[in-house]
Amino acid sequence: MTASQADHSGRSAPDGAAYVAPRAPQIEGRDRTGDVILVCEHASNAMPPPWGDLGLTAEQREAHIAWDPGALGLMRGLARRLEATCIAATTSRLIYDCNRAPDMPGAMPARSEIHEIPGNAALTPAQRAQRSAALYVPFHDALHALIAERIALGRRPVILTIHSFTPVYFGTPRSVEFGVIHDADARLAQAIVAEAQARTGLKTGLNEPYSAADDVTHTLRLHATPYGLVNAMLEIRNDLIATPEAEAAMADTLAPVLAAAMATLTRRKDI
Amino acid sequence: MTASQADHSGRSAPDGAAYVAPRAPQIEGRDRTGDVILVCEHASNAMPPPWGDLGLTAEQREAHIAWDPGALGLMRGLARRLEATCIAATTSRLIYDCNRAPDMPGAMPARSEIHEIPGNAALTPAQRAQRSAALYVPFHDALHALIAERIALGRRPVILTIHSFTPVYFGTPRSVEFGVIHDADARLAQAIVAEAQARTGLKTGLNEPYSAADDVTHTLRLHATPYGLVNAMLEIRNDLIATPEAEAAMADTLAPVLAAAMATLTRRKDI
Repeated sequence: MTASQADHSGRSAPDGAAYVAPRAPQIEGRDRTGDVILVCEHASNAMPPPWGDLGLTAEQREAHIAWDPGALGLMRGLARRLEATCIAATTSRLIYDCNRAPDMPGAMPARSEIHEIPGNAALTPAQRAQRSAALYVPFHDALHALIAERIALGRRPVILTIHSFTPVYFGTPRSVEFGVIHDADARLAQAIVAEAQARTGLKTGLNEPYSAADDVTHTLRLHATPYGLVNAMLEIRNDLIATPEAEAAMADTLAPVLAAAMATLTRRKDI
Repeated sequence: MTASQADHSGRSAPDGAAYVAPRAPQIEGRDRTGDVILVCEHASNAMPPPWGDLGLTAEQREAHIAWDPGALGLMRGLARRLEATCIAATTSRLIYDCNRAPDMPGAMPARSEIHEIPGNAALTPAQRAQRSAALYVPFHDALHALIAERIALGRRPVILTIHSFTPVYFGTPRSVEFGVIHDADARLAQAIVAEAQARTGLKTGLNEPYSAADDVTHTLRLHATPYGLVNAMLEIRNDLIATPEAEAAMADTLAPVLAAAMATLTRRKDI
Protein backbone atom coordinates (compact mmCIF):
# COMPACT_ATOMS: atom_id res chain seq x y z
CA MET A 1 0.00 0.00 0.00
CA THR A 2 1.34 3.43 -0.84
CA ALA A 3 1.46 6.34 1.56
CA SER A 4 -1.26 8.25 -0.26
CA GLN A 5 -3.65 5.36 -0.04
CA ALA A 6 -3.07 4.98 3.66
CA ASP A 7 -3.81 8.70 3.81
CA HIS A 8 -7.15 8.63 2.11
CA SER A 9 -8.42 5.68 4.09
CA GLY A 10 -7.64 7.54 7.33
CA ARG A 11 -5.20 4.88 8.52
CA SER A 12 -1.59 5.55 9.40
CA ALA A 13 1.22 3.73 7.68
CA PRO A 14 3.25 1.46 10.00
CA ASP A 15 6.05 4.02 10.22
CA GLY A 16 3.71 6.79 11.35
CA ALA A 17 3.42 8.71 8.08
CA ALA A 18 -0.24 9.58 8.57
CA TYR A 19 -2.15 11.68 6.08
CA VAL A 20 -1.42 15.42 6.25
CA ALA A 21 -3.67 17.82 4.35
CA PRO A 22 -1.91 19.65 1.51
CA ARG A 23 -0.53 23.06 2.55
CA ALA A 24 -1.15 25.48 -0.27
CA PRO A 25 1.39 28.19 -0.98
CA GLN A 26 0.43 31.85 -0.64
CA ILE A 27 -0.33 33.66 -3.89
CA GLU A 28 -0.44 37.46 -3.98
CA GLY A 29 -1.33 39.81 -6.81
CA ARG A 30 -2.94 37.16 -8.97
CA ASP A 31 -4.62 39.86 -11.09
CA ARG A 32 -1.54 41.99 -11.65
CA THR A 33 -0.86 42.63 -15.29
CA GLY A 34 2.93 42.50 -15.43
CA ASP A 35 4.83 39.74 -17.21
CA VAL A 36 6.65 38.39 -14.16
CA ILE A 37 5.76 35.56 -11.81
CA LEU A 38 7.99 35.74 -8.72
CA VAL A 39 8.59 32.54 -6.76
CA CYS A 40 9.93 32.21 -3.20
CA GLU A 41 10.37 28.60 -2.17
CA HIS A 42 12.19 29.54 1.05
CA ALA A 43 9.90 32.35 2.25
CA SER A 44 8.94 30.86 5.61
CA ASN A 45 10.56 29.33 8.66
CA ALA A 46 7.24 27.98 9.97
CA MET A 47 7.47 24.45 11.35
CA PRO A 48 3.85 23.43 11.86
CA PRO A 49 2.42 20.16 13.15
CA PRO A 50 2.71 17.27 12.65
CA TRP A 51 6.39 17.88 11.93
CA GLY A 52 7.20 20.50 14.55
CA ASP A 53 10.68 21.83 15.27
CA LEU A 54 12.64 18.78 14.05
CA GLY A 55 14.64 18.94 17.27
CA LEU A 56 16.18 22.32 16.46
CA THR A 57 16.77 25.20 18.87
CA ALA A 58 14.89 28.49 18.54
CA GLU A 59 18.11 30.08 17.28
CA GLN A 60 18.54 27.44 14.57
CA ARG A 61 14.93 27.87 13.49
CA GLU A 62 15.58 31.61 12.96
CA ALA A 63 18.80 31.03 11.03
CA HIS A 64 19.32 30.87 7.27
CA ILE A 65 19.24 27.09 7.31
CA ALA A 66 15.48 27.19 7.98
CA TRP A 67 14.55 29.81 5.36
CA ASP A 68 15.91 32.68 3.26
CA PRO A 69 15.63 35.71 5.59
CA GLY A 70 14.51 38.81 3.73
CA ALA A 71 13.51 37.01 0.55
CA LEU A 72 9.75 37.26 1.12
CA GLY A 73 9.86 40.99 1.87
CA LEU A 74 12.11 41.65 -1.11
CA MET A 75 9.82 39.60 -3.36
CA ARG A 76 6.77 41.56 -2.24
CA GLY A 77 8.58 44.83 -2.86
CA LEU A 78 9.62 43.71 -6.33
CA ALA A 79 6.10 42.47 -7.05
CA ARG A 80 4.57 45.88 -6.31
CA ARG A 81 7.17 47.69 -8.40
CA LEU A 82 6.95 45.28 -11.35
CA GLU A 83 3.16 44.72 -11.15
CA ALA A 84 4.01 41.03 -10.68
CA THR A 85 2.22 38.03 -9.21
CA CYS A 86 4.07 36.21 -6.48
CA ILE A 87 3.90 32.80 -4.85
CA ALA A 88 5.52 31.80 -1.55
CA ALA A 89 5.89 28.55 0.36
CA THR A 90 4.41 28.65 3.87
CA THR A 91 6.59 26.00 5.53
CA SER A 92 10.30 25.83 6.35
CA ARG A 93 12.66 24.40 3.77
CA LEU A 94 13.95 22.06 6.47
CA ILE A 95 10.61 20.22 6.50
CA TYR A 96 10.45 20.21 2.69
CA ASP A 97 12.56 22.38 0.39
CA CYS A 98 10.23 23.12 -2.54
CA ASN A 99 13.22 23.95 -4.75
CA ARG A 100 14.35 20.32 -4.61
CA ALA A 101 12.92 17.15 -6.18
CA PRO A 102 11.84 14.50 -3.64
CA ASP A 103 14.93 12.36 -4.32
CA MET A 104 17.47 15.16 -3.82
CA PRO A 105 19.37 15.09 -0.51
CA GLY A 106 18.44 18.73 0.12
CA ALA A 107 14.69 18.12 -0.09
CA MET A 108 14.52 16.98 3.56
CA PRO A 109 18.14 17.45 4.65
CA ALA A 110 19.64 15.47 7.51
CA ARG A 111 22.35 18.13 7.71
CA SER A 112 22.45 21.78 6.60
CA GLU A 113 25.78 23.57 6.57
CA ILE A 114 27.18 22.77 10.03
CA HIS A 115 23.87 21.83 11.65
CA GLU A 116 22.46 18.34 12.16
CA ILE A 117 18.66 18.22 11.67
CA PRO A 118 17.55 15.54 14.16
CA GLY A 119 13.99 15.27 12.85
CA ASN A 120 15.32 14.44 9.37
CA ALA A 121 17.98 11.97 10.45
CA ALA A 122 16.08 8.73 9.84
CA LEU A 123 13.13 9.43 7.57
CA THR A 124 11.36 6.40 6.14
CA PRO A 125 10.25 6.31 2.49
CA ALA A 126 6.62 6.76 3.62
CA GLN A 127 7.55 9.81 5.68
CA ARG A 128 9.34 11.32 2.70
CA ALA A 129 6.29 10.62 0.53
CA GLN A 130 4.02 12.20 3.14
CA ARG A 131 6.00 15.46 3.18
CA SER A 132 6.26 15.51 -0.59
CA ALA A 133 2.50 15.06 -0.99
CA ALA A 134 1.64 17.65 1.67
CA LEU A 135 4.17 20.36 0.74
CA TYR A 136 6.02 19.84 -2.55
CA VAL A 137 3.16 18.72 -4.79
CA PRO A 138 0.67 21.48 -3.79
CA PHE A 139 3.33 24.19 -4.14
CA HIS A 140 4.17 23.15 -7.67
CA ASP A 141 0.56 22.44 -8.64
CA ALA A 142 -0.34 26.01 -7.67
CA LEU A 143 2.56 27.47 -9.63
CA HIS A 144 1.81 25.24 -12.61
CA ALA A 145 -1.85 26.34 -12.63
CA LEU A 146 -0.77 30.01 -12.58
CA ILE A 147 1.62 29.49 -15.47
CA ALA A 148 -0.81 27.39 -17.52
CA GLU A 149 -3.52 30.02 -17.13
CA ARG A 150 -1.22 32.80 -18.31
CA ILE A 151 -0.05 30.77 -21.29
CA ALA A 152 -3.61 29.80 -22.23
CA LEU A 153 -4.57 33.49 -22.14
CA GLY A 154 -1.81 34.22 -24.64
CA ARG A 155 0.67 35.71 -22.17
CA ARG A 156 4.31 34.65 -21.79
CA PRO A 157 5.22 34.82 -18.13
CA VAL A 158 8.80 35.44 -17.04
CA ILE A 159 9.76 33.21 -14.10
CA LEU A 160 12.05 34.64 -11.41
CA THR A 161 12.86 32.81 -8.19
CA ILE A 162 13.95 34.97 -5.24
CA HIS A 163 16.46 33.75 -2.67
CA SER A 164 18.88 35.08 -0.06
CA PHE A 165 22.23 33.67 1.02
CA THR A 166 24.31 33.95 4.14
CA PRO A 167 27.39 36.24 4.13
CA VAL A 168 29.52 33.49 5.68
CA TYR A 169 29.23 29.82 4.70
CA PHE A 170 31.27 27.07 6.33
CA GLY A 171 33.31 29.86 7.89
CA THR A 172 34.25 31.54 4.59
CA PRO A 173 32.92 35.01 3.63
CA ARG A 174 31.19 35.09 0.27
CA SER A 175 32.43 37.64 -2.19
CA VAL A 176 29.28 38.53 -4.15
CA GLU A 177 26.33 40.58 -2.94
CA PHE A 178 23.96 39.71 -5.78
CA GLY A 179 24.06 36.43 -7.67
CA VAL A 180 22.10 35.53 -10.79
CA ILE A 181 21.87 31.85 -11.67
CA HIS A 182 20.62 30.22 -14.83
CA ASP A 183 19.72 26.74 -15.91
CA ALA A 184 19.41 25.71 -19.60
CA ASP A 185 18.46 29.21 -20.78
CA ALA A 186 21.08 31.83 -19.83
CA ARG A 187 19.54 34.81 -21.67
CA LEU A 188 17.72 36.57 -18.86
CA ALA A 189 20.41 35.85 -16.24
CA GLN A 190 23.10 37.35 -18.47
CA ALA A 191 20.97 40.44 -19.17
CA ILE A 192 20.28 40.95 -15.46
CA VAL A 193 23.98 40.74 -14.58
CA ALA A 194 24.81 43.27 -17.30
CA GLU A 195 22.16 45.71 -16.08
CA ALA A 196 23.13 45.27 -12.42
CA GLN A 197 26.76 45.99 -13.23
CA ALA A 198 25.81 49.04 -15.28
CA ARG A 199 23.20 50.48 -12.92
CA THR A 200 24.16 49.53 -9.36
CA GLY A 201 27.15 49.28 -7.07
CA LEU A 202 26.29 45.72 -6.10
CA LYS A 203 29.05 43.14 -6.42
CA THR A 204 27.25 40.94 -8.93
CA GLY A 205 28.15 37.49 -10.20
CA LEU A 206 26.73 35.08 -12.76
CA ASN A 207 26.19 31.63 -11.28
CA GLU A 208 27.40 32.82 -7.89
CA PRO A 209 27.44 31.91 -5.01
CA TYR A 210 26.48 28.58 -6.59
CA SER A 211 25.09 27.25 -9.85
CA ALA A 212 22.69 24.82 -11.45
CA ALA A 213 25.25 22.07 -10.84
CA ASP A 214 24.38 22.40 -7.14
CA ASP A 215 20.75 21.30 -7.78
CA VAL A 216 19.38 24.79 -7.06
CA THR A 217 17.35 25.27 -10.25
CA HIS A 218 14.67 22.63 -9.79
CA THR A 219 11.76 25.11 -9.95
CA LEU A 220 13.11 26.59 -13.19
CA ARG A 221 13.54 23.13 -14.74
CA LEU A 222 10.06 22.07 -13.75
CA HIS A 223 8.14 25.18 -14.80
CA ALA A 224 10.09 27.43 -17.16
CA THR A 225 12.13 25.11 -19.39
CA PRO A 226 9.24 22.88 -20.59
CA TYR A 227 7.34 25.95 -21.80
CA GLY A 228 10.36 27.84 -23.16
CA LEU A 229 9.76 30.68 -20.70
CA VAL A 230 12.67 32.99 -19.95
CA ASN A 231 13.75 32.65 -16.36
CA ALA A 232 16.43 33.22 -13.75
CA MET A 233 17.19 32.64 -10.09
CA LEU A 234 18.13 35.70 -8.01
CA GLU A 235 20.26 35.45 -4.86
CA ILE A 236 20.75 38.45 -2.53
CA ARG A 237 23.17 38.44 0.41
CA ASN A 238 20.88 38.39 3.41
CA ASP A 239 22.64 41.11 5.45
CA LEU A 240 21.58 43.55 2.71
CA ILE A 241 17.87 42.80 3.26
CA ALA A 242 17.83 42.40 7.04
CA THR A 243 15.09 44.99 7.80
CA PRO A 244 11.86 46.04 6.07
CA GLU A 245 13.59 49.30 5.09
CA ALA A 246 16.53 47.44 3.60
CA GLU A 247 14.18 45.11 1.70
CA ALA A 248 12.39 48.15 0.24
CA ALA A 249 15.68 49.82 -0.68
CA MET A 250 16.89 46.65 -2.43
CA ALA A 251 13.57 46.40 -4.29
CA ASP A 252 14.11 50.02 -5.40
CA THR A 253 17.57 49.05 -6.65
CA LEU A 254 16.67 45.79 -8.37
CA ALA A 255 13.27 46.54 -9.93
CA PRO A 256 14.77 48.83 -12.62
CA VAL A 257 17.53 46.27 -13.23
CA LEU A 258 14.98 43.53 -13.87
CA ALA A 259 12.77 45.79 -16.00
CA ALA A 260 15.75 46.84 -18.13
CA ALA A 261 16.91 43.23 -18.58
CA MET A 262 13.42 42.18 -19.70
CA ALA A 263 13.26 45.15 -22.05
CA THR A 264 16.54 43.99 -23.62
CA LEU A 265 15.10 40.53 -24.25
CA THR A 266 11.87 42.02 -25.60
CA ARG A 267 13.84 44.17 -28.05
CA ARG A 268 15.69 41.06 -29.21
CA LYS A 269 12.32 39.29 -29.44
CA ASP A 270 13.44 36.68 -26.90
CA ILE A 271 10.26 37.23 -24.88
CA MET B 1 -10.42 39.46 -14.09
CA THR B 2 -9.05 36.08 -15.09
CA ALA B 3 -11.12 33.14 -16.22
CA SER B 4 -10.49 31.15 -13.06
CA GLN B 5 -11.66 33.99 -10.88
CA ALA B 6 -14.88 34.33 -12.83
CA ASP B 7 -15.19 30.61 -12.22
CA HIS B 8 -14.90 30.62 -8.49
CA SER B 9 -17.29 33.52 -8.03
CA GLY B 10 -19.91 31.62 -10.04
CA ARG B 11 -20.09 34.32 -12.70
CA SER B 12 -19.44 33.74 -16.36
CA ALA B 13 -16.85 35.71 -18.26
CA PRO B 14 -18.31 37.96 -20.99
CA ASP B 15 -17.30 35.50 -23.70
CA GLY B 16 -19.12 32.58 -22.07
CA ALA B 17 -16.14 30.78 -20.53
CA ALA B 18 -18.01 29.72 -17.40
CA TYR B 19 -16.38 27.60 -14.73
CA VAL B 20 -16.09 23.91 -15.56
CA ALA B 21 -15.12 21.48 -12.80
CA PRO B 22 -11.74 19.80 -13.34
CA ARG B 23 -12.02 16.43 -15.11
CA ALA B 24 -9.56 14.06 -13.50
CA PRO B 25 -7.80 11.48 -15.63
CA GLN B 26 -8.33 7.78 -14.98
CA ILE B 27 -5.56 6.02 -13.04
CA GLU B 28 -5.38 2.21 -13.01
CA GLY B 29 -3.03 -0.09 -11.16
CA ARG B 30 -1.76 2.55 -8.75
CA ASP B 31 -0.38 -0.17 -6.46
CA ARG B 32 1.41 -2.16 -9.12
CA THR B 33 5.06 -2.68 -8.33
CA GLY B 34 6.66 -2.37 -11.77
CA ASP B 35 8.92 0.50 -12.72
CA VAL B 36 6.80 1.85 -15.56
CA ILE B 37 4.18 4.58 -15.58
CA LEU B 38 2.21 4.40 -18.85
CA VAL B 39 0.51 7.58 -20.09
CA CYS B 40 -2.24 7.86 -22.70
CA GLU B 41 -3.17 11.47 -23.43
CA HIS B 42 -5.39 10.50 -26.39
CA ALA B 43 -7.26 7.58 -24.83
CA SER B 44 -10.79 8.93 -25.23
CA ASN B 45 -13.03 10.44 -27.88
CA ALA B 46 -15.58 11.63 -25.31
CA MET B 47 -16.90 15.12 -25.97
CA PRO B 48 -18.82 15.98 -22.82
CA PRO B 49 -20.73 19.15 -21.91
CA PRO B 50 -20.26 22.06 -21.91
CA TRP B 51 -18.13 21.64 -25.03
CA GLY B 52 -20.12 18.97 -26.88
CA ASP B 53 -19.38 17.75 -30.40
CA LEU B 54 -17.60 20.93 -31.64
CA GLY B 55 -19.80 20.76 -34.76
CA LEU B 56 -18.29 17.47 -35.94
CA THR B 57 -20.15 14.55 -37.50
CA ALA B 58 -20.46 11.19 -35.72
CA GLU B 59 -17.98 9.78 -38.24
CA GLN B 60 -15.42 12.50 -37.50
CA ARG B 61 -15.81 11.94 -33.77
CA GLU B 62 -14.94 8.24 -34.26
CA ALA B 63 -11.91 9.01 -36.44
CA HIS B 64 -8.25 9.30 -35.43
CA ILE B 65 -8.47 13.09 -35.27
CA ALA B 66 -10.58 12.81 -32.09
CA TRP B 67 -8.41 10.22 -30.26
CA ASP B 68 -5.83 7.47 -30.77
CA PRO B 69 -7.95 4.37 -31.50
CA GLY B 70 -6.56 1.26 -29.84
CA ALA B 71 -4.09 3.12 -27.62
CA LEU B 72 -6.07 2.70 -24.38
CA GLY B 73 -6.58 -1.04 -24.89
CA LEU B 74 -2.93 -1.53 -25.80
CA MET B 75 -1.84 0.48 -22.76
CA ARG B 76 -3.98 -1.64 -20.44
CA GLY B 77 -2.56 -4.81 -21.97
CA LEU B 78 0.98 -3.56 -21.52
CA ALA B 79 0.22 -2.43 -17.96
CA ARG B 80 -0.93 -5.93 -16.95
CA ARG B 81 2.08 -7.57 -18.56
CA LEU B 82 4.62 -5.09 -17.12
CA GLU B 83 2.91 -4.69 -13.71
CA ALA B 84 2.68 -0.98 -14.57
CA THR B 85 0.50 1.90 -13.42
CA CYS B 86 -1.38 3.72 -16.14
CA ILE B 87 -3.08 7.07 -16.53
CA ALA B 88 -5.51 8.05 -19.28
CA ALA B 89 -7.26 11.26 -20.31
CA THR B 90 -11.05 11.00 -20.33
CA THR B 91 -11.86 13.69 -22.91
CA SER B 92 -11.17 14.00 -26.64
CA ARG B 93 -7.92 15.59 -27.75
CA LEU B 94 -9.98 17.92 -29.94
CA ILE B 95 -11.39 19.61 -26.82
CA TYR B 96 -7.95 19.72 -25.19
CA ASP B 97 -4.91 17.69 -26.28
CA CYS B 98 -3.11 16.94 -23.00
CA ASN B 99 0.13 16.30 -24.90
CA ARG B 100 0.29 19.97 -25.91
CA ALA B 101 1.04 23.13 -23.89
CA PRO B 102 -1.82 25.66 -23.84
CA ASP B 103 -0.08 27.93 -26.35
CA MET B 104 0.58 25.23 -28.95
CA PRO B 105 -1.71 25.28 -31.99
CA GLY B 106 -2.51 21.59 -31.49
CA ALA B 107 -3.82 22.07 -27.94
CA MET B 108 -7.29 23.10 -29.19
CA PRO B 109 -6.85 22.75 -32.95
CA ALA B 110 -8.98 24.71 -35.40
CA ARG B 111 -7.98 22.16 -38.06
CA SER B 112 -6.79 18.55 -37.80
CA GLU B 113 -5.37 16.89 -40.91
CA ILE B 114 -8.04 17.65 -43.55
CA HIS B 115 -10.87 18.40 -41.09
CA GLU B 116 -12.03 21.82 -39.91
CA ILE B 117 -13.08 21.81 -36.23
CA PRO B 118 -15.92 24.37 -36.10
CA GLY B 119 -16.11 24.53 -32.31
CA ASN B 120 -12.43 25.49 -32.14
CA ALA B 121 -12.47 28.05 -34.96
CA ALA B 122 -12.79 31.22 -32.87
CA LEU B 123 -11.82 30.47 -29.28
CA THR B 124 -11.33 33.46 -27.01
CA PRO B 125 -8.42 33.60 -24.55
CA ALA B 126 -10.86 32.98 -21.67
CA GLN B 127 -12.27 29.91 -23.42
CA ARG B 128 -8.76 28.56 -23.94
CA ALA B 129 -7.98 29.19 -20.25
CA GLN B 130 -11.22 27.45 -19.23
CA ARG B 131 -10.34 24.27 -21.16
CA SER B 132 -6.76 24.33 -19.92
CA ALA B 133 -7.90 24.64 -16.29
CA ALA B 134 -10.57 21.94 -16.62
CA LEU B 135 -8.61 19.36 -18.65
CA TYR B 136 -4.89 20.05 -19.04
CA VAL B 137 -4.00 21.11 -15.50
CA PRO B 138 -5.77 18.22 -13.67
CA PHE B 139 -4.30 15.64 -16.06
CA HIS B 140 -0.76 16.81 -15.41
CA ASP B 141 -1.32 17.39 -11.69
CA ALA B 142 -2.42 13.75 -11.35
CA LEU B 143 0.58 12.47 -13.30
CA HIS B 144 2.94 14.75 -11.36
CA ALA B 145 1.57 13.50 -8.03
CA LEU B 146 2.10 9.87 -9.15
CA ILE B 147 5.67 10.58 -10.19
CA ALA B 148 6.52 12.64 -7.08
CA GLU B 149 5.20 9.88 -4.83
CA ARG B 150 7.31 7.23 -6.55
CA ILE B 151 10.42 9.39 -6.40
CA ALA B 152 9.84 10.25 -2.73
CA LEU B 153 9.53 6.53 -2.00
CA GLY B 154 12.95 5.97 -3.56
CA ARG B 155 11.70 4.49 -6.85
CA ARG B 156 12.76 5.70 -10.31
CA PRO B 157 9.73 5.45 -12.59
CA VAL B 158 10.17 4.96 -16.34
CA ILE B 159 7.75 7.16 -18.31
CA LEU B 160 6.23 5.74 -21.51
CA THR B 161 3.51 7.53 -23.47
CA ILE B 162 1.31 5.33 -25.68
CA HIS B 163 -0.12 6.58 -28.98
CA SER B 164 -1.51 5.29 -32.26
CA PHE B 165 -1.26 6.80 -35.73
CA THR B 166 -3.32 6.52 -38.88
CA PRO B 167 -2.00 4.34 -41.75
CA VAL B 168 -2.71 7.12 -44.27
CA TYR B 169 -2.07 10.80 -43.51
CA PHE B 170 -2.87 13.59 -45.95
CA GLY B 171 -3.41 10.83 -48.54
CA THR B 172 0.04 9.29 -48.14
CA PRO B 173 0.56 5.80 -46.65
CA ARG B 174 2.98 5.75 -43.74
CA SER B 175 5.84 3.32 -43.96
CA VAL B 176 6.44 2.37 -40.32
CA GLU B 177 4.25 0.17 -38.12
CA PHE B 178 5.91 1.01 -34.82
CA GLY B 179 7.56 4.34 -34.07
CA VAL B 180 9.62 5.25 -31.01
CA ILE B 181 10.19 8.95 -30.35
CA HIS B 182 12.55 10.61 -27.92
CA ASP B 183 13.05 14.08 -26.59
CA ALA B 184 16.27 15.18 -24.83
CA ASP B 185 17.14 11.69 -23.59
CA ALA B 186 17.40 9.14 -26.43
CA ARG B 187 18.60 6.16 -24.38
CA LEU B 188 15.39 4.24 -23.85
CA ALA B 189 13.99 5.00 -27.33
CA GLN B 190 17.16 3.68 -28.96
CA ALA B 191 17.09 0.53 -26.82
CA ILE B 192 13.42 -0.12 -27.66
CA VAL B 193 14.06 0.23 -31.40
CA ALA B 194 16.99 -2.19 -31.18
CA GLU B 195 14.93 -4.77 -29.28
CA ALA B 196 11.92 -4.40 -31.60
CA GLN B 197 14.12 -4.93 -34.63
CA ALA B 198 15.78 -7.96 -33.03
CA ARG B 199 12.64 -9.58 -31.61
CA THR B 200 9.68 -8.68 -33.87
CA GLY B 201 8.74 -8.40 -37.51
CA LEU B 202 7.37 -4.88 -37.01
CA LYS B 203 8.63 -2.18 -39.36
CA THR B 204 10.14 0.01 -36.64
CA GLY B 205 11.52 3.52 -36.88
CA LEU B 206 13.22 5.94 -34.49
CA ASN B 207 11.50 9.34 -34.48
CA GLU B 208 8.91 8.09 -36.97
CA PRO B 209 6.25 8.94 -38.10
CA TYR B 210 7.20 12.26 -36.51
CA SER B 211 9.60 13.62 -33.92
CA ALA B 212 10.03 16.00 -31.00
CA ALA B 213 10.36 18.84 -33.52
CA ASP B 214 6.62 18.37 -34.18
CA ASP B 215 5.75 19.33 -30.57
CA VAL B 216 4.69 15.77 -29.68
CA THR B 217 6.86 15.29 -26.58
CA HIS B 218 5.27 17.81 -24.22
CA THR B 219 4.38 15.21 -21.56
CA LEU B 220 7.95 13.88 -21.57
CA ARG B 221 9.40 17.39 -21.26
CA LEU B 222 7.08 18.28 -18.41
CA HIS B 223 7.42 15.13 -16.31
CA ALA B 224 10.45 13.04 -17.24
CA THR B 225 13.20 15.48 -18.18
CA PRO B 226 13.08 17.63 -15.00
CA TYR B 227 13.59 14.50 -12.86
CA GLY B 228 16.08 12.80 -15.15
CA LEU B 229 13.70 9.85 -15.65
CA VAL B 230 14.25 7.65 -18.67
CA ASN B 231 11.36 7.92 -21.08
CA ALA B 232 10.04 7.39 -24.58
CA MET B 233 6.94 7.92 -26.70
CA LEU B 234 5.52 4.85 -28.46
CA GLU B 235 3.44 5.10 -31.65
CA ILE B 236 1.62 2.06 -33.10
CA ARG B 237 -0.14 2.08 -36.49
CA ASN B 238 -3.79 1.95 -35.55
CA ASP B 239 -4.87 -0.73 -38.03
CA LEU B 240 -2.65 -3.15 -36.06
CA ILE B 241 -4.64 -2.56 -32.85
CA ALA B 242 -8.15 -2.27 -34.26
CA THR B 243 -9.82 -4.99 -32.12
CA PRO B 244 -9.44 -6.13 -28.50
CA GLU B 245 -7.75 -9.31 -29.81
CA ALA B 246 -5.29 -7.26 -31.87
CA GLU B 247 -4.56 -4.99 -28.90
CA ALA B 248 -3.79 -8.06 -26.77
CA ALA B 249 -1.60 -9.56 -29.48
CA MET B 250 0.35 -6.30 -29.82
CA ALA B 251 0.76 -6.13 -26.03
CA ASP B 252 2.14 -9.69 -26.18
CA THR B 253 4.61 -8.56 -28.85
CA LEU B 254 5.70 -5.29 -27.25
CA ALA B 255 5.84 -6.14 -23.53
CA PRO B 256 8.99 -8.30 -23.92
CA VAL B 257 10.53 -5.60 -26.15
CA LEU B 258 10.01 -2.95 -23.48
CA ALA B 259 11.18 -5.25 -20.68
CA ALA B 260 14.36 -6.11 -22.62
CA ALA B 261 15.07 -2.44 -23.40
CA MET B 262 14.70 -1.50 -19.73
CA ALA B 263 16.93 -4.42 -18.74
CA THR B 264 19.59 -3.08 -21.11
CA LEU B 265 19.47 0.32 -19.44
CA THR B 266 19.53 -1.27 -15.99
CA ARG B 267 22.62 -3.29 -16.92
CA ARG B 268 24.28 -0.07 -18.09
CA LYS B 269 23.12 1.57 -14.83
CA ASP B 270 21.11 4.16 -16.77
CA ILE B 271 18.03 3.43 -14.67
